[in-house]
Amino acid sequence: MAATEASGAAQDEYDVIVLGAGPTGENLADRAHAAGLSTVVVETELVGGECSYWACMPSKALLRPVTSRAEAGRVPGLKDAVAGPLDAPAVLAHRDAVTSYWKDDGQVRWLDSAGIDLVRGHGRLAGPRRVVVDGERVLTARHAVAVCTGSRPVLPPVPGLAEARPWTSREATSAKSVPGRLVVVGGGVVGVEMATAWRALGSSVTLLVRGDGLLPRMEPFAGRLVAEALAEAGAYLRTGVEVREVRREAPGGPVTVVLDSPPGPGGPGGTPRDEIVADELLIATGRAPRTDDIGLETIGLSPGSWLDVDDSCRVTGVTGGWLYGVGDVNHRALLTHQGKYQARIAGAAIGARARGVPILETDPWGAHAATADRRAVPQVVFTDPEVASVGLTAAAAERAGYRTRVVDHDLGAVAGAFLYADGYRGRARMVVDLDREVLLGVTFVGPGVGELLHSASVAVAGEVPLERLWHAVPSYPTISEVWLRLLESYRG
Amino acid sequence: MAATEASGAAQDEYDVIVLGAGPTGENLADRAHAAGLSTVVVETELVGGECSYWACMPSKALLRPVTSRAEAGRVPGLKDAVAGPLDAPAVLAHRDAVTSYWKDDGQVRWLDSAGIDLVRGHGRLAGPRRVVVDGERVLTARHAVAVCTGSRPVLPPVPGLAEARPWTSREATSAKSVPGRLVVVGGGVVGVEMATAWRALGSSVTLLVRGDGLLPRMEPFAGRLVAEALAEAGAYLRTGVEVREVRREAPGGPVTVVLDSPPGPGGPGGTPRDEIVADELLIATGRAPRTDDIGLETIGLSPGSWLDVDDSCRVTGVTGGWLYGVGDVNHRALLTHQGKYQARIAGAAIGARARGVPILETDPWGAHAATADRRAVPQVVFTDPEVASVGLTAAAAERAGYRTRVVDHDLGAVAGAFLYADGYRGRARMVVDLDREVLLGVTFVGPGVGELLHSASVAVAGEVPLERLWHAVPSYPTISEVWLRLLESYRG
Repeated sequence: MAATEASGAAQDEYDVIVLGAGPTGENLADRAHAAGLSTVVVETELVGGECSYWACMPSKALLRPVTSRAEAGRVPGLKDAVAGPLDAPAVLAHRDAVTSYWKDDGQVRWLDSAGIDLVRGHGRLAGPRRVVVDGERVLTARHAVAVCTGSRPVLPPVPGLAEARPWTSREATSAKSVPGRLVVVGGGVVGVEMATAWRALGSSVTLLVRGDGLLPRMEPFAGRLVAEALAEAGAYLRTGVEVREVRREAPGGPVTVVLDSPPGPGGPGGTPRDEIVADELLIATGRAPRTDDIGLETIGLSPGSWLDVDDSCRVTGVTGGWLYGVGDVNHRALLTHQGKYQARIAGAAIGARARGVPILETDPWGAHAATADRRAVPQVVFTDPEVASVGLTAAAAERAGYRTRVVDHDLGAVAGAFLYADGYRGRARMVVDLDREVLLGVTFVGPGVGELLHSASVAVAGEVPLERLWHAVPSYPTISEVWLRLLESYRG
Repeated sequence: MAATEASGAAQDEYDVIVLGAGPTGENLADRAHAAGLSTVVVETELVGGECSYWACMPSKALLRPVTSRAEAGRVPGLKDAVAGPLDAPAVLAHRDAVTSYWKDDGQVRWLDSAGIDLVRGHGRLAGPRRVVVDGERVLTARHAVAVCTGSRPVLPPVPGLAEARPWTSREATSAKSVPGRLVVVGGGVVGVEMATAWRALGSSVTLLVRGDGLLPRMEPFAGRLVAEALAEAGAYLRTGVEVREVRREAPGGPVTVVLDSPPGPGGPGGTPRDEIVADELLIATGRAPRTDDIGLETIGLSPGSWLDVDDSCRVTGVTGGWLYGVGDVNHRALLTHQGKYQARIAGAAIGARARGVPILETDPWGAHAATADRRAVPQVVFTDPEVASVGLTAAAAERAGYRTRVVDHDLGAVAGAFLYADGYRGRARMVVDLDREVLLGVTFVGPGVGELLHSASVAVAGEVPLERLWHAVPSYPTISEVWLRLLESYRG
């Protein structure tokens, strides 16, 4: 067995080399190993990756108390008990425990028990099938190298910004104390989640957004409902503004954010200019692939670029087809679960190809095609209200040329919802492909909808016809009964 | 239009007569009316039925504060705030509001706006297609009579029980004050939900069960986990006991429940006998169809029997095929949502048959067959932990002759679950049909799984192949990720 041969520590030839030990790299290694391939993972930081230490895990640990308190606050007989502030030190301590105090012993043990080798250090490609770690150790791959290095936050080119050492998603999820005043720049998922968390933990929060609303890639009502809730929670939201300059006089001291509003009706030049002084500044405006220093140039690719891949996550245009780009680096869907999904598929494809089994990565929904990346990407935003969506928005479906019908329903009118929370506010939308009568996308916004999403994911990925969805009876009285209302509205 | 003709109040001939204005009757009337048929509903109690006033709605209103408090109690930063007791008067007042103070004005307005006539009074069949209300008004049906009278709790024949005027589900959901000591007899859904609610509202609760566990029709771990939680909440559970006698000396006074334990190893006769004194006694041991006084004998059927129906809910063996039995009365699945489902299907079938359109009620998953009654009945038990199941249990699938594989997973090991609640305890099971590789049944037990159930309902009713379920990616980190674990375990 190749896997057994790989167990020697001095082994420098493997079937598969994985760059990056985040969830994507771990899952890819697991699948490759399960296919009987010797596998090594190269990691320069912590095994477990961004998700475990500076993203999903700590952010959810910060947010769960916020949503739980908000929900309890809408329940008769309990409202008064939770009217006070959250115990911030307890929340932060829990967050620390959830990240295993930023130590990766547990994950290293898992790799070990799974029979996967780990090489710590910075891995760079050095020509085909070859990786050099920290400029010293040379690893070669018989079958495949998988780049699973993920992405990093990008600071926009604003004067003074880098020097002011702002928070990125990393600092926002790992901060040890609650800033008095926090300015958040960016209205995407990181921006709204961290604004929600730190506001509830006690910060005075101002959220600055360049566009006209929050969560711009989702259905418009999602951003509207989250904006309303942030305002009610006491956060300030300013849309249509741009950061022109940032100043921090002394490390740890206050930071000044200088704003430009966009040109008003009077034309450019006459716009007001104002400044906000805060204790911390979080920049959450975009991400870049961690491919700038992994030796892409040695195989004719551009350093710092997103990797272009086919549906099996094999990088296109590489002679011999030995390079894979899995997870954030391929820019298909920058989400942990989607990276893991790709890893399962790419790992299976690597295994099949290594055995000489022909695979059809163009076979939709097959074992070797990450079809869901294009058709059924789910996402939950853990704000209050929660936002949960899968598949295409109405606008995206229209752009893609589908003949669609959009059906909306007020979640607050569903019995299960108003029993769940007094004064429940929320909304659901389904986007129907009229030609096939299947769902292209579904969005739920409201308290407690996070777990409801998977019903939509099964319906979208399963291409379950609407006619059959009538037989999937929602239990009464749950929020899920909105499914019935959506089907009724569609029937008209 | 027949529907327009029906709007005159003096109209006594209708296309469709519906006996019972619970959710089932309302939905059936709605569908019949939508099919262009004049429709009248006859109701002797409140429009809205058991569900609105004495079951789903008030019970969920009592239980939501309980689960919300339990969940907040597992969240760091919030635990201490909810350590105190629930504000019982606030919960009861909310419950009163949720039932509209046991007034049906709103539901009557809905019937009115929907163009459906309402006749208040007790309706009895008087031969084919004829209903007499309160022995006076005669209604005739051109096409169909639908019996949607539901079910009622049954008191077992225990000496002194009826005289002691125990609570049934009605009193348990509508009681105006919290009894000091409550004995609950029966370990089914009503028993465990009401034990959970009243314990949290302050009662000292003893739950008496004849068998060896709770929720006997569900997967065995469901009852075990609920029993553990009830014990931790301070309720007493006694299994394997039978109530031999009940005594209440004075109305409103304490009630004495005399127990028999089953024969022990020493054989019959040597069993201990003991008594429990309580302030209230809830009997939740079974239900009977409300068909005992609706004139079934006038058309050759037995009063008090469950109605035997085909998959379109048409009563079998009735000449002319004009009689339908929809909801609890047909004993297919005694659940509000399943009655509503049947009502949609039966209403459509009545409409089609009235137009002379041939229908195939034997066509599985078609528009006129309540196939889900046999294959995909969902149920949520709103205890802490919640229990959510759909389709067949492992035992039921085996009895039905399927070749199955049962896959279990510890929910507490799912990242989304332990972020949801510190010390999360729960379990998931899927039952796979090995011949078709689709799911026959799924059960989730744990905090916050109620809305997760619909994903399983879509998978089971949609007969989505396991191979495709791999592409329904659970969002990270949600409890839904248990789907991935179950699929992984199945793959082995």
